[in-house]
Amino acid sequence: MMLEKTTRINFLFDFYQSLLTDKQRQYMQLYYLEDLSLGEIAEEYGVSRQAVYDNVRRTETMLEDYEKKLNLFDKFQQRIEIVEQLEQLMTGSDEHTTKLKNLLNELKDRE
Amino acid sequence: MMLEKTTRINFLFDFYQSLLTDKQRQYMQLYYLEDLSLGEIAEEYGVSRQAVYDNVRRTETMLEDYEKKLNLFDKFQQRIEIVEQLEQLMTGSDEHTTKLKNLLNELKDRE
Repeated sequence: MMLEKTTRINFLFDFYQSLLTDKQRQYMQLYYLEDLSLGEIAEEYGVSRQAVYDNVRRTETMLEDYEKKLNLFDKFQQRIEIVEQLEQLMTGSDEHTTKLKNLLNELKDRE
Repeated sequence: MMLEKTTRINFLFDFYQSLLTDKQRQYMQLYYLEDLSLGEIAEEYGVSRQAVYDNVRRTETMLEDYEKKLNLFDKFQQRIEIVEQLEQLMTGSDEHTTKLKNLLNELKDRE
């Protein structure tokens, strides 16, 4: 599995897992978090490898669809970026005050 | 309509409208944002008042269900609260630095 894709799916799973079914959540957890193979999951649940594969792929598509609609991961990254900028300004002197306030306003404008 | 409930529904609509159908979005917009009556909406769409009522009530329930699962409105309020505390500390002297950093960490811990 490509590392970058795995990281993204893990994040999306974090944000949207409450919208999945129990079965979807279980497969995703075993596959992505506990790193079991499709075959191992299939064996554990007494279903075909193909069934697990289809379920996982469908869930990934659902997660990307939710992200397209709600942008929670994207907004999260934007906030983190702002907070990091804020932190860099924290040690500054008074001339930074205006910058700080602008950043805070930006933060408030996001959901 | 009770003002407090209307405000809450407006916020939930803001956060979750992308998950609604076009029809649900239209009715909610007319009823809550443009303040049309159920009867006026029914007339505009050539349906019964009861049909509009049922759709709007069902949508409200859906919005509350999404909030139970994703807590976007709740998390948003929490962030706003933190940002307001941060702002109050902005004018402070050096003894506030630790407080500021704690608040920023809190902010980062939220999604």
